[in-house]
Amino acid sequence: MLVSAILTSVGINSALCVIFLVLYSILKKQPSYYEVYIPRLLTEGNSKRRSRFNLERLIPSTGWLPKAWKLSEEEMLSSSGLDAVVYMRTITFCLKVFSFAGIIGIFILLPVNCSGTELHQIDFEDLYSNSLDVFTISNVNRGSKWLWIHFSSVYAITIFICYLLYHEYKYISSKRIAYFYSSKPQPHQFTILVRNIPVSAGSSVSDSVQSFFTEYYPATYLSHIVVRRTSKVQSLINDAKQLYRRLLHLQSEPSEQKSKQVGLFEKNVDLLDHYGKRLEDLEQNARLEQSEDTHAAFVSFKTRYGASTVFHLQQSTNPTHWLTEEAPQPNDVFWPFFSSSFMGRWISKLLVVVACILLTVVFLIPVVVVQGLTNLSQLEVWFPFLKSILTIAFVSQIVTGYLPSLILMLFLKIVPPIMEFLSSIQGYISHSEIERSACNKVLWFTVWNIFFATVFSGSVLNKLSIILDPKNIPAKLAVVVPAQASFFIAYVVTSGWTSTSSELFRIIPLICSLMTKCCAESADDEIEVPSIPYHRDIPRILFFGLLGIAYFFLAPVILPFLLVYFCLAYIIFRNQFINVYAPKYETAGKFWPIVHNLVIFSLVLMHAIAVGIFSLKKLSLASTLVLPLPVLTLLFNEYCRKRFRPIFTAYPAEILIKKDREDQNDATMSEFFDKLATTYQDPALMPIQYSADCDSLNRPLLSSSETSM
Amino acid sequence: MLVSAILTSVGINSALCVIFLVLYSILKKQPSYYEVYIPRLLTEGNSKRRSRFNLERLIPSTGWLPKAWKLSEEEMLSSSGLDAVVYMRTITFCLKVFSFAGIIGIFILLPVNCSGTELHQIDFEDLYSNSLDVFTISNVNRGSKWLWIHFSSVYAITIFICYLLYHEYKYISSKRIAYFYSSKPQPHQFTILVRNIPVSAGSSVSDSVQSFFTEYYPATYLSHIVVRRTSKVQSLINDAKQLYRRLLHLQSEPSEQKSKQVGLFEKNVDLLDHYGKRLEDLEQNARLEQSEDTHAAFVSFKTRYGASTVFHLQQSTNPTHWLTEEAPQPNDVFWPFFSSSFMGRWISKLLVVVACILLTVVFLIPVVVVQGLTNLSQLEVWFPFLKSILTIAFVSQIVTGYLPSLILMLFLKIVPPIMEFLSSIQGYISHSEIERSACNKVLWFTVWNIFFATVFSGSVLNKLSIILDPKNIPAKLAVVVPAQASFFIAYVVTSGWTSTSSELFRIIPLICSLMTKCCAESADDEIEVPSIPYHRDIPRILFFGLLGIAYFFLAPVILPFLLVYFCLAYIIFRNQFINVYAPKYETAGKFWPIVHNLVIFSLVLMHAIAVGIFSLKKLSLASTLVLPLPVLTLLFNEYCRKRFRPIFTAYPAEILIKKDREDQNDATMSEFFDKLATTYQDPALMPIQYSADCDSLNRPLLSSSETSM
Repeated sequence: MLVSAILTSVGINSALCVIFLVLYSILKKQPSYYEVYIPRLLTEGNSKRRSRFNLERLIPSTGWLPKAWKLSEEEMLSSSGLDAVVYMRTITFCLKVFSFAGIIGIFILLPVNCSGTELHQIDFEDLYSNSLDVFTISNVNRGSKWLWIHFSSVYAITIFICYLLYHEYKYISSKRIAYFYSSKPQPHQFTILVRNIPVSAGSSVSDSVQSFFTEYYPATYLSHIVVRRTSKVQSLINDAKQLYRRLLHLQSEPSEQKSKQVGLFEKNVDLLDHYGKRLEDLEQNARLEQSEDTHAAFVSFKTRYGASTVFHLQQSTNPTHWLTEEAPQPNDVFWPFFSSSFMGRWISKLLVVVACILLTVVFLIPVVVVQGLTNLSQLEVWFPFLKSILTIAFVSQIVTGYLPSLILMLFLKIVPPIMEFLSSIQGYISHSEIERSACNKVLWFTVWNIFFATVFSGSVLNKLSIILDPKNIPAKLAVVVPAQASFFIAYVVTSGWTSTSSELFRIIPLICSLMTKCCAESADDEIEVPSIPYHRDIPRILFFGLLGIAYFFLAPVILPFLLVYFCLAYIIFRNQFINVYAPKYETAGKFWPIVHNLVIFSLVLMHAIAVGIFSLKKLSLASTLVLPLPVLTLLFNEYCRKRFRPIFTAYPAEILIKKDREDQNDATMSEFFDKLATTYQDPALMPIQYSADCDSLNRPLLSSSETSM
Repeated sequence: MLVSAILTSVGINSALCVIFLVLYSILKKQPSYYEVYIPRLLTEGNSKRRSRFNLERLIPSTGWLPKAWKLSEEEMLSSSGLDAVVYMRTITFCLKVFSFAGIIGIFILLPVNCSGTELHQIDFEDLYSNSLDVFTISNVNRGSKWLWIHFSSVYAITIFICYLLYHEYKYISSKRIAYFYSSKPQPHQFTILVRNIPVSAGSSVSDSVQSFFTEYYPATYLSHIVVRRTSKVQSLINDAKQLYRRLLHLQSEPSEQKSKQVGLFEKNVDLLDHYGKRLEDLEQNARLEQSEDTHAAFVSFKTRYGASTVFHLQQSTNPTHWLTEEAPQPNDVFWPFFSSSFMGRWISKLLVVVACILLTVVFLIPVVVVQGLTNLSQLEVWFPFLKSILTIAFVSQIVTGYLPSLILMLFLKIVPPIMEFLSSIQGYISHSEIERSACNKVLWFTVWNIFFATVFSGSVLNKLSIILDPKNIPAKLAVVVPAQASFFIAYVVTSGWTSTSSELFRIIPLICSLMTKCCAESADDEIEVPSIPYHRDIPRILFFGLLGIAYFFLAPVILPFLLVYFCLAYIIFRNQFINVYAPKYETAGKFWPIVHNLVIFSLVLMHAIAVGIFSLKKLSLASTLVLPLPVLTLLFNEYCRKRFRPIFTAYPAEILIKKDREDQNDATMSEFFDKLATTYQDPALMPIQYSADCDSLNRPLLSSSETSM
């Protein structure tokens, strides 16, 4: 790929970014788009809908930038929780790494690469027509002493990254502990989920739980709630809610339409009465519907330490009975998947693993097609009729420089929802765990399908044969990875820049909002504040991190593009946390270990490539001297795992006991315990509530007139 | 290898076995060998030394056989503990498996193999001159429909073994629970070991422990003992004990010798006084020697449940501080290795792993030599001068049939002590854990170095390249494994039969005992009852199990030899448990998971070989249909791991609480708690005790006159 092709791609995407930014700054100020751009502020009551029109609203502005910039970490912590802080720290971590790497890469490695003559000499007069390969390590002459600079930079960046990783892990662990210390008593701290409760004949699950815990934990046991199978009830309730909305809509409509409808059906029934009756019936049915007990229960205790001991100890002589898990936050519970047994969950887990593997394999098809695009001659062989069009310079530049990564990006868009679905049928009990699991799945899917599938061309079997032949991996990586540098630069620009600015512009929510305004008659006016989909965004950021680390010493020219991406992401996500996203639940930083592991993986990948490259370049001493580096990195990782990981799985006894003692003197605790007994009730079994618009039954909705403008 | 060569080996070893058995039955009745053959009965006082001579003592008898046969499992459990029961059940498990496999193998598979003509037709008139290959699957014609019989037998044996494994795991788990239920209060149930205790400046480790546990566990904390670095004290005590023995010896000697010695040194000192004074000095020094505190302590609690909760929960916000482990039994504690820190232990663990790998690689040298022996022509190339000798039929039969496995066996003798040493510097705190870890090491060492190194000929790198090319493993196994059938039959006969009967005969202890009687003047007459070295014997039995399972459908002719081996082992080890070995400590069945895992590994190995063999024999349908089998076996293993494994790592809360409640009404508990406070005192810091002969200071030892006869 030529420099000009890359520049075309950069041009297109920069233009797109600017358009997005301008449009955003205008649309954001239109009250009718408030629920797209500032839903969070709206629900928090911090922003009022101004219906007065003024010219200022149509002029693009940058007022949101300083606001997003000034946000301090403490403010972020209090408003968006520890997860958001961890997310932002992931971005700043990458920024730090690539600032350091960028300085080394651009000012030291790039000149060395350009000075080589292995491929061809650089043409300074017409930079445009240079192949990008001139800027990569491939251009350095074989056996050249200059390669020791690359060697040293590999060591330098590894040490720098490990140093940063250690401090980041330490900082986030301490934040996690501090977060727990400062938290008010929360139901999930006092509760555990017990599964596979054995029931003797003639008694109920509830009796079984009651007798077990009163016998063995009389001092700390407080109460329990048996989980019920509520899918039927849930569907009845959904029907009822739908009906209710229709009723509400009917009430607010002008009366002519009502009578018209009646006329249409040629019945002399008052529709309002009719619907009202059906609603009552449905409510009645939902109440009568026998919900079946599952063999699971939420058990609450009087102290955090008491809950924690029960969670940590194996309870029964049969280790498949009385399985304990930490309870999620009440609003985090994923109710649908409580029905399965021990074996059922296990089998569904296996099936999900198989499904993931299948998906990964099937996904190779678009990747192979995309690869064909970067290779014009291949494309001409496939589609001979395109030959004439492809000879036009601009078209060929778009096709090779922009189209491949755009197609990949679109295909990748559907992966996170699929992975989330797969995780949800895997038997997790909370939305946050599903998200974390999906995050991992998307991450490894991306690494495998974008990185490895792109660099190793050929069929699936060919790729598998490479993985099954581990000792040749470095040599093969050394050949193929530098060759794909230009593709990945284009990928960073397309997928990174554009997707981040479209994140700000929120294309899909915008389209949805426009659609509902045009088509839907029912003005369902509840503003839903979205939560950030970590399983979509963390893998993306980490994948760019992997690209940067892997290409750092091969093709340092990728680094400036990455830096621009991370800067964009930094400012845009801060803005989104203020205006758009509100946390739905809190894992208190449990996403960090995923980040840590992927960075370690990236480092080891870089080392493997380095081993291959140096032996390819006939510098076998350097190739040997790199070998200790992956070993040391893995040892470092192992140390971090021992030193910090336990903090992310459970809180230590010391802290639990201290918190419990603090509560002993708290008068509000008895009230808290009273509430605790019903917190984990399945919402489907509660008296039906028609959410926010519950109290507006007999009057037209306040804001409906505004939204329909 | 010809049938005659195998028969030579069988002949030699059968003769050896008979000699061992006869000698055993005679020597066992000689009072002077009592401490070799019935040390356990002797110390338990069940057998008195009869000095009267009668002729019966010189006639071989089989009286010990019925005694060993009649021993019931309950008797075994009460006399030798659960570990011995598990060991014997491992042998009976193998007996069951190979009885079933033997019936299928000999009556169904063997005729099928012999009826084939792939290699050459069997010569029924001169069975001796047949190659053993005629009896293996290699002789079945390619594409023959008879191979489906082999296919079905692979399925049958897998199902049978999994069924047995499940029941055995279940039975041993229930025994383990029952053992705990019926046990009296034992110190290690109430105690945990805490490591990496952080100490603030100016305070001691003891203060730190005291303040931590009184603060956080005031209700259950009982007492603690800080572990001290006692290597110096220990050496002083050893000096003192040696001196004491000398003194004792001097006292019992006739007075002429005493004065003679004095004359020799030309000093007019009473030696008795001299030694006595030195002994006092040493004792004084040992008492004064400042033993350094380590950052570890045994902490005891008032209840088992209390100890268990502290063990299971992470204590400190820094997960590398206050590390908890379950305490071993007091006599099981391995005192020397308490000094190391968190990092120190971790590094020594890594070093041990490296050492194990090195040992495995170095050990390949004798294995390669042994392989050369089975291949006569190779040997003639190496040592041309042997050519003339090797042409003698008997010599060549010994060299190919007997010598290789004898050499291997001798080399293997040194492996268990080396592995035990490696495990002991790995940071384990108890002898039993060291033994378990050594058992695992020896096991995988054997599997790798005997099985894989023998079947895959060639250099180390060649072997590694096979492992690094996993998809071709089945094909390669299919070629090489059947070819080594005759070697492994010889190995079973030599290593199995002879080593088991020499176990009965106890060659090495016998030689030691003879040596001490001849040379040593000091009659150190304490009888030390040995404990069975599980890390030597379990791997041996399991390795024969692996051979049997791997060769079951390839060369069923190996099965009768294995059956003889297991029968011998069954009766001989029962006898040894009665007469020789006494348990030193109890892991309560923790060796079983090792057995289970290796059997599963053997099954999967068999499946891999089956896949290779069937595709080699042009029966690709069978080859494909075998594939679900390893997957199902591994799933079965995973299920067992979930269902039973937790029982072997810790006792469930239910049982702990029940046992604690039982104790509440027990009046003897306060006495037990008083003792508990000092149970985990390092023996080096106790008042010096001169073991069993403590009270015999001023009189000649009672039995010394008898032993010197």
